[in-house]
Amino acid sequence: MKEEVFFSKGMKHVKEDYPDLYEASVLLNDVCYSGKSLDYKTQKLIAIGIAAAASDDRAVKKQIMSGMAELGITKDEVVDVLRMVLLLAGKPSFTKGMNALYKIKE
Amino acid sequence: MKEEVFFSKGMKHVKEDYPDLYEASVLLNDVCYSGKSLDYKTQKLIAIGIAAAASDDRAVKKQIMSGMAELGITKDEVVDVLRMVLLLAGKPSFTKGMNALYKIKE
Amino acid sequence: MKEEVFFSKGMKHVKEDYPDLYEASVLLNDVCYSGKSLDYKTQKLIAIGIAAAASDDRAVKKQIMSGMAELGITKDEVVDVLRMVLLLAGKPSFTKGMNALYKIKE
Amino acid sequence: MKEEVFFSKGMKHVKEDYPDLYEASVLLNDVCYSGKSLDYKTQKLIAIGIAAAASDDRAVKKQIMSGMAELGITKDEVVDVLRMVLLLAGKPSFTKGMNALYKIKE
Amino acid sequence: MKEEVFFSKGMKHVKEDYPDLYEASVLLNDVCYSGKSLDYKTQKLIAIGIAAAASDDRAVKKQIMSGMAELGITKDEVVDVLRMVLLLAGKPSFTKGMNALYKIKE
Amino acid sequence: MKEEVFFSKGMKHVKEDYPDLYEASVLLNDVCYSGKSLDYKTQKLIAIGIAAAASDDRAVKKQIMSGMAELGITKDEVVDVLRMVLLLAGKPSFTKGMNALYKIKE
Repeated sequence: MKEEVFFSKGMKHVKEDYPDLYEASVLLNDVCYSGKSLDYKTQKLIAIGIAAAASDDRAVKKQIMSGMAELGITKDEVVDVLRMVLLLAGKPSFTKGMNALYKIKE
Repeated sequence: MKEEVFFSKGMKHVKEDYPDLYEASVLLNDVCYSGKSLDYKTQKLIAIGIAAAASDDRAVKKQIMSGMAELGITKDEVVDVLRMVLLLAGKPSFTKGMNALYKIKE
Repeated sequence: MKEEVFFSKGMKHVKEDYPDLYEASVLLNDVCYSGKSLDYKTQKLIAIGIAAAASDDRAVKKQIMSGMAELGITKDEVVDVLRMVLLLAGKPSFTKGMNALYKIKE
Repeated sequence: MKEEVFFSKGMKHVKEDYPDLYEASVLLNDVCYSGKSLDYKTQKLIAIGIAAAASDDRAVKKQIMSGMAELGITKDEVVDVLRMVLLLAGKPSFTKGMNALYKIKE
Repeated sequence: MKEEVFFSKGMKHVKEDYPDLYEASVLLNDVCYSGKSLDYKTQKLIAIGIAAAASDDRAVKKQIMSGMAELGITKDEVVDVLRMVLLLAGKPSFTKGMNALYKIKE
Repeated sequence: MKEEVFFSKGMKHVKEDYPDLYEASVLLNDVCYSGKSLDYKTQKLIAIGIAAAASDDRAVKKQIMSGMAELGITKDEVVDVLRMVLLLAGKPSFTKGMNALYKIKE
């Protein structure tokens, strides 16, 4: 199982209190990250882009951190994702993504 | 210049009537698609993911079509992008993306 | 299985071409609609509210139609959902929801 | 009363079937458009910007049309609104707004 | 009047400084929560769903807290709302809702 | 150059590390704020409206602060923008905007 989206406290409680929901959530995660053609790293880059375009700071930060730690995604690669965010979602989403990235790097 | 996002009628008028805005828009497009580390195809896959997560049918369709025509992106690759959309943006966005994809393929 | 969200053409193709993704999607649907405390009808009303607040016309229409056909949800109940949409998501989302509702009733 | 947002079919039915909701909706509209410091035209330009940034084609079109008909808003003024949309919400929302504008002008 | 959405500091100032806007806002709240067919509790569950699907942490927390305090909404009922959020808005919105819920319970 | 959107830490790093991206971003900002018909202040009011409708607290705060400091935008004018937000984006976005405004004023 690819663990990266299960860090949060809330999900630990879900595992204990609502095992059916937890298992469906794990299965969903596994199936979605099991691409036929794209590798895990490319899917992760897409996940960073989606989170950043949605202006979701914490999700971006979590996705960038796990992408760097587990998959060796580099700062330049994240910036190339954020270029798409600037074009497709505008400057505030882009700036938030950049702030998240540089907070991690420092 | 990477042309794919300039198809629309509205942008032709912008070129004639507001050349400063058109040129800034072209420059933005060029800079955003000129990644240092990711190739054009990977950036395009990210663009498909962002458009699909935003539930923007027409943008998804345009992005998929230009990605297939210009960059040889395959149906399986688009589906792998949509897996991320299902996980991160939910079933309605995923279903819309799938409908867009299969309309193009038929 | 509660079928209502599997109508679309795209999903038929997913069933044939990507059975793993289809099955995960069906399981997700089943687990999500299997509330411990709320009945199916209440969950459906919530689904209508979420789709309407997201200004997603087609999803609203599909949710209202299946809710009326399968669960006997009434026009007045949908309007009470849309009251929440007016308060929480503003007038344009509310108006779209109302238009969808009255198109179905006519 | 400033009528412009009450065109839609759905709202006519609301007036007959749910007069309390209709009246609250009219009052809300009146209070919101009764700025202390900004005039009606400036508020309308803001409304166009909000609708365009939300990528809501039909709302943009309705807002532009009523703004041009009732308040003499010009094409150049709408374009200046859409400049904000390009910066703050990205290229797809901007392009949709431009398409809506030029469809009206033609 | 159903008070729950008027807690915030900002709204106290609105009451003093912009009474017309405050009154319209109270009336809107009253009309929207005065469903013909759905009871207050069901409307509140819908409000929780809309706030969670919009990934709005603070709104979710406020809605859950007032729903539990005033209407006896249970943890299991909130989880059943969040099941809809997982299906319709994706995993990040679902996880945020779960985190909000368990922070309140602890 | 109109500086107001370049405050953030992240953008300082972009200037050093990705000058092409920084320059495109500055050019975009300049072109977008160089309206033909609307003055800078009106464009800024539109920017506040777009940020508030998107429920983006920090962006709203930054836009209000720079608008007050650089352009003499008043509290009443911001409230008139937020009236549009209440109508078009609902009560939670409106309340967030009000909270941001009164935090600045205090």
